[in-house]
Amino acid sequence: MRPNNRAADQVRPIKMTRHYTAYAEGSVLVEFGNTKVLCNATVEESVPRWMKGQGKGWVTAEYSMLPRATHSRTRREVTNGKQGGRTMEIQRLIARSLRAVVDLQAMGEFMITVDCDVIQADGGTRTASISGASVALADAFQYLIDNGKLKKNPMKGHVAAVSVGVLGDEILCDLEYVEDSNADTDMNVVMTEDGRMIEIQGTAEGEPFTHEQLMALLDCAKTGINEIVAAQKASLEN
Amino acid sequence: MRPNNRAADQVRPIKMTRHYTAYAEGSVLVEFGNTKVLCNATVEESVPRWMKGQGKGWVTAEYSMLPRATHSRTRREVTNGKQGGRTMEIQRLIARSLRAVVDLQAMGEFMITVDCDVIQADGGTRTASISGASVALADAFQYLIDNGKLKKNPMKGHVAAVSVGVLGDEILCDLEYVEDSNADTDMNVVMTEDGRMIEIQGTAEGEPFTHEQLMALLDCAKTGINEIVAAQKASLEN
Amino acid sequence: MRPNNRAADQVRPIKMTRHYTAYAEGSVLVEFGNTKVLCNATVEESVPRWMKGQGKGWVTAEYSMLPRATHSRTRREVTNGKQGGRTMEIQRLIARSLRAVVDLQAMGEFMITVDCDVIQADGGTRTASISGASVALADAFQYLIDNGKLKKNPMKGHVAAVSVGVLGDEILCDLEYVEDSNADTDMNVVMTEDGRMIEIQGTAEGEPFTHEQLMALLDCAKTGINEIVAAQKASLEN
Amino acid sequence: MRPNNRAADQVRPIKMTRHYTAYAEGSVLVEFGNTKVLCNATVEESVPRWMKGQGKGWVTAEYSMLPRATHSRTRREVTNGKQGGRTMEIQRLIARSLRAVVDLQAMGEFMITVDCDVIQADGGTRTASISGASVALADAFQYLIDNGKLKKNPMKGHVAAVSVGVLGDEILCDLEYVEDSNADTDMNVVMTEDGRMIEIQGTAEGEPFTHEQLMALLDCAKTGINEIVAAQKASLEN
Amino acid sequence: MRPNNRAADQVRPIKMTRHYTAYAEGSVLVEFGNTKVLCNATVEESVPRWMKGQGKGWVTAEYSMLPRATHSRTRREVTNGKQGGRTMEIQRLIARSLRAVVDLQAMGEFMITVDCDVIQADGGTRTASISGASVALADAFQYLIDNGKLKKNPMKGHVAAVSVGVLGDEILCDLEYVEDSNADTDMNVVMTEDGRMIEIQGTAEGEPFTHEQLMALLDCAKTGINEIVAAQKASLEN
Amino acid sequence: MRPNNRAADQVRPIKMTRHYTAYAEGSVLVEFGNTKVLCNATVEESVPRWMKGQGKGWVTAEYSMLPRATHSRTRREVTNGKQGGRTMEIQRLIARSLRAVVDLQAMGEFMITVDCDVIQADGGTRTASISGASVALADAFQYLIDNGKLKKNPMKGHVAAVSVGVLGDEILCDLEYVEDSNADTDMNVVMTEDGRMIEIQGTAEGEPFTHEQLMALLDCAKTGINEIVAAQKASLEN
Repeated sequence: MRPNNRAADQVRPIKMTRHYTAYAEGSVLVEFGNTKVLCNATVEESVPRWMKGQGKGWVTAEYSMLPRATHSRTRREVTNGKQGGRTMEIQRLIARSLRAVVDLQAMGEFMITVDCDVIQADGGTRTASISGASVALADAFQYLIDNGKLKKNPMKGHVAAVSVGVLGDEILCDLEYVEDSNADTDMNVVMTEDGRMIEIQGTAEGEPFTHEQLMALLDCAKTGINEIVAAQKASLEN
Repeated sequence: MRPNNRAADQVRPIKMTRHYTAYAEGSVLVEFGNTKVLCNATVEESVPRWMKGQGKGWVTAEYSMLPRATHSRTRREVTNGKQGGRTMEIQRLIARSLRAVVDLQAMGEFMITVDCDVIQADGGTRTASISGASVALADAFQYLIDNGKLKKNPMKGHVAAVSVGVLGDEILCDLEYVEDSNADTDMNVVMTEDGRMIEIQGTAEGEPFTHEQLMALLDCAKTGINEIVAAQKASLEN
Repeated sequence: MRPNNRAADQVRPIKMTRHYTAYAEGSVLVEFGNTKVLCNATVEESVPRWMKGQGKGWVTAEYSMLPRATHSRTRREVTNGKQGGRTMEIQRLIARSLRAVVDLQAMGEFMITVDCDVIQADGGTRTASISGASVALADAFQYLIDNGKLKKNPMKGHVAAVSVGVLGDEILCDLEYVEDSNADTDMNVVMTEDGRMIEIQGTAEGEPFTHEQLMALLDCAKTGINEIVAAQKASLEN
Repeated sequence: MRPNNRAADQVRPIKMTRHYTAYAEGSVLVEFGNTKVLCNATVEESVPRWMKGQGKGWVTAEYSMLPRATHSRTRREVTNGKQGGRTMEIQRLIARSLRAVVDLQAMGEFMITVDCDVIQADGGTRTASISGASVALADAFQYLIDNGKLKKNPMKGHVAAVSVGVLGDEILCDLEYVEDSNADTDMNVVMTEDGRMIEIQGTAEGEPFTHEQLMALLDCAKTGINEIVAAQKASLEN
Repeated sequence: MRPNNRAADQVRPIKMTRHYTAYAEGSVLVEFGNTKVLCNATVEESVPRWMKGQGKGWVTAEYSMLPRATHSRTRREVTNGKQGGRTMEIQRLIARSLRAVVDLQAMGEFMITVDCDVIQADGGTRTASISGASVALADAFQYLIDNGKLKKNPMKGHVAAVSVGVLGDEILCDLEYVEDSNADTDMNVVMTEDGRMIEIQGTAEGEPFTHEQLMALLDCAKTGINEIVAAQKASLEN
Repeated sequence: MRPNNRAADQVRPIKMTRHYTAYAEGSVLVEFGNTKVLCNATVEESVPRWMKGQGKGWVTAEYSMLPRATHSRTRREVTNGKQGGRTMEIQRLIARSLRAVVDLQAMGEFMITVDCDVIQADGGTRTASISGASVALADAFQYLIDNGKLKKNPMKGHVAAVSVGVLGDEILCDLEYVEDSNADTDMNVVMTEDGRMIEIQGTAEGEPFTHEQLMALLDCAKTGINEIVAAQKASLEN
């Protein structure tokens, strides 16, 4: 039995609180159960130097965890003088996922940075980050439209992400920490709201996985993504 | 007139939310008006190497701002490979302030680290940090007592801090950002709950200040500190 | 038509030169067409500090490119003071892939580091690295057996990797640089020699990919992996 | 009794040697007893990028200790790859103190950097640095006047600094190392030559200090500052 | 007796393989016995910022060792965040040596970087690097001529380098690792092809050396240099 | 004519002030004309970890320049986060030179670090550093003897260093800055007091140098070394 009697293919309760902080152009506190990530989107009226003059925009992301987001305290990365490999992997993934649903040409020479700072971590921080960042990004584009700087929203739709895994004989959706740390296979799936794939990253921590297991994992991910997209849409209607 | 019709010697509305996150032994979200800082206290059953075997404990602090806590986005310090001078000054101040109200000998070989992460910054982040960290620290010591690891609370009382400043002809208490950035003199005062001084740091940004102005600033600080101490005590009674 | 008239599901000519350098316990120059990577395995009779005393071994990997492995010169990472995100991602992937085919418990308290240094880069450096490192690792274990330090080879079989991609309407195997830089989707697949999956990492650079495309990519990868495993086995028989 | 029979409110013998090195536009070796600091002022005909085109000048400072300025050897900060928190605090304090007595608008687009390098440290290195740097800065401005680049000296007067402290029952002025390391409260006071305050930084290392003690410390500082200002003026008359 | 019956003043078998990699404008694998260094010359159509607009070119070099070039594995310098002192010394020596045989004025505003990456190290890696880099540099200039960017080769001749040493009573040429690590004096001599000196660096590791020993070392170096220059010329005739 | 009518083979006036600072076990301010270097020797009762338990001692050195030792200000190396190549080369040279005249076995498990900090730089800072450090080292060993920690001085004699150069047709000794920056060849020679060589480092900045020029440079260096050794001996007799 999963904690809180969750079904195998059920995601945790999802909550998206918009306008969580006052200054960011988009600010969403996303919660996947006990996992809480603050996604703040910042609009800047310039692009990185290597993009100047192309008439295109850019979307990027940064990811970090507060030291005590975790069960025991994690040392700040600044103390080591550099970001760790895990952080870099995650923020590159978030950024690619967001760019996949934006028409960079249509957004003009603006840059949007989405900072995903994990307040509390109970598994799935990267998938919660992507899912919340999509909403913060939508708010940031709306800000540009409201201020007469853009005519039309350059987002092609939402992007959502979920983790799925193999734990013993079971295929589980949206793993929390205790599940994740015992899973044989851990897979993160990023999809557009219409169900096409943007990223798929699966790793066998224990036993290699078979083609059949992969098929089941993808099925399970699809179910979860649908729930998350529904939550994204609901939050924007408030 | 000050924003929200505040009197010159009045602090902003103070709110302290305990147990804000789930894993830290002490976790307080402190709000001084729009300034919001998450203070998480972590207990470790060991002390830094240079202190080992002395039977004494240690209390330290770290301070950071989320990139979009500020009106425009601030680059993460990890990107520069090191903490800036302002951050170091502030976290050293927080740590000294906390240690001033703890009997390190009585706390045994434990180390408590209080992480002060600024969620939203509207002036006074360091004084809010100290004031909230004092409560988080009290909760962390209570945790040690509840778990049979300490017999008696080694805190001698609360420590609270407030900023005061000279703005034109006026002496103001608990400056918010628009006031702080225009003040001639900015002073941070850290006191014990019984009104003795732990730290006093005053800087003339514009005109040097006179002895008379200093006296008025200290008076004003005393008034503010009393309100903050009342809020600390109230929060611990809930 | 692909360069050199390659079929869509055909890998480039694969060459594995063992004992390429004189001092490493395993040393393989692996070539996938014009991509050339030197994989040197080093055996050390100790494990990282956090593993000491558990009776288990460890396998890790590092990855780097010579500055002029690429068409234009790439700045050395040491000049920036740290490894880039891409390097970290790749070396973590290589290490995980190798560990997936080793019984760490059976190998005893030895550590093997496989250095993958790219001499010439024409696409697929990470998949060539994994495939060559598997052979270098096998040689390093044989060295331990030959020197009476291990009784039995703790490798469960080979690990091989290949890239596949969607380029226009086509599904291609083992992309070279000109193909890779134009692909809509790029996927790296790491498999055991018996065809089970260790890692799968697919990214839509342009259009998101469909479930059908994913199925075709996996089929194509399986074909390529079989050819690579054959080359690995052949090289060890010489 | 204090070392060398000093009275409680008496500063150590002060010596300021101008033109100590040959190339700097201002070069002063300042001695407060056994504390010796070389203050070299460098004039550059440009300002930091963020100030360009405003017609204003800038004054900054850097602080460092030679490794064997101290009783036991201190590791060079470059070996750690960055300046420590104490160094940053001190050099920011020196720079703010100097700027407080300069009319930046009147000095034009010049930048003056004052390097304070401690040759020998026996307490009070930051207050000696500020006091000596004021003289070096005056010489640097004179250099600009002598070379026809400035019409009028933009310094509004001298800035001087002294440390005061509570040691047991006594209030002491200009603490040397053995006193400083035993003091309950340590305070640095920076004043203009006419006795107004620029910075005041007091820290209770042991017991918190009372309002009465603060008053006594400020009195004591005033006496010391007067002696230092006299020494500054005398040195410039030679 | 020396390994492989070498005479005291005899260099190891020298081999220079041009066009070793496909993309560099000059690419030479140089072998001095078991020492193998890949020298890749890169042409860029710009010079460092501080040289712009002077109409002159620049030649620089970088040096690195693969981790397992050595008998036991050497940690990558990027892991330490910076190059070590030995690496910096060697790459500065290589660069100065190359520039000594180039007419920088005649080469125009091009920059050539020669990367010397040690594949296998058995003593003399810096002298092999210089000797191989000279040939790679010649090829890079030929590339500029062949592409109509230069009219005339700005190299004044070859530069070659050899190590000589005092081992017990003997003066040896081109020391390999086992000799080098036991030598009392180790000297690197860099000469033009006509026998004039560019660099001479001699270090007494054990006993100081006499004027007579220095004379013998220089004689021995001259003999070795002649053989290396012959190999350089032969390689360019193929 | 040379500045101050110096003869070609004449060193600048040499001055060695012992006990320049109060805390170092050996402290010498060495002056070669306008070049001034403070050499402080620190004794520690332990050796680096890799030497522990061998019963041998270690001598090392560090070198740095104050920012305004030079005609225009030089940025502190700590600001770049690391020492530059020139600094590393020089401090390695100083350390090797000192170790060459010490019987490390006889000195026991002590470590002596000589810090050479350049107060004013007018050419020849590395040769002045070595020459002054030799005296500071002698004082540090005397300190160990005076305190009963060593029976006998483990120094075998003094080490001295001088620069020589080719400037036009002339061979010059102990070059000052204006000469050094125009020289075709610059050579540093480090000798024992009995005239044997420890290090010789010659670099052709312009034209390569001939065997005859090398002979003349060595002759010239010998003359200079003798004068420096005389100054070292005289300073120790005071």
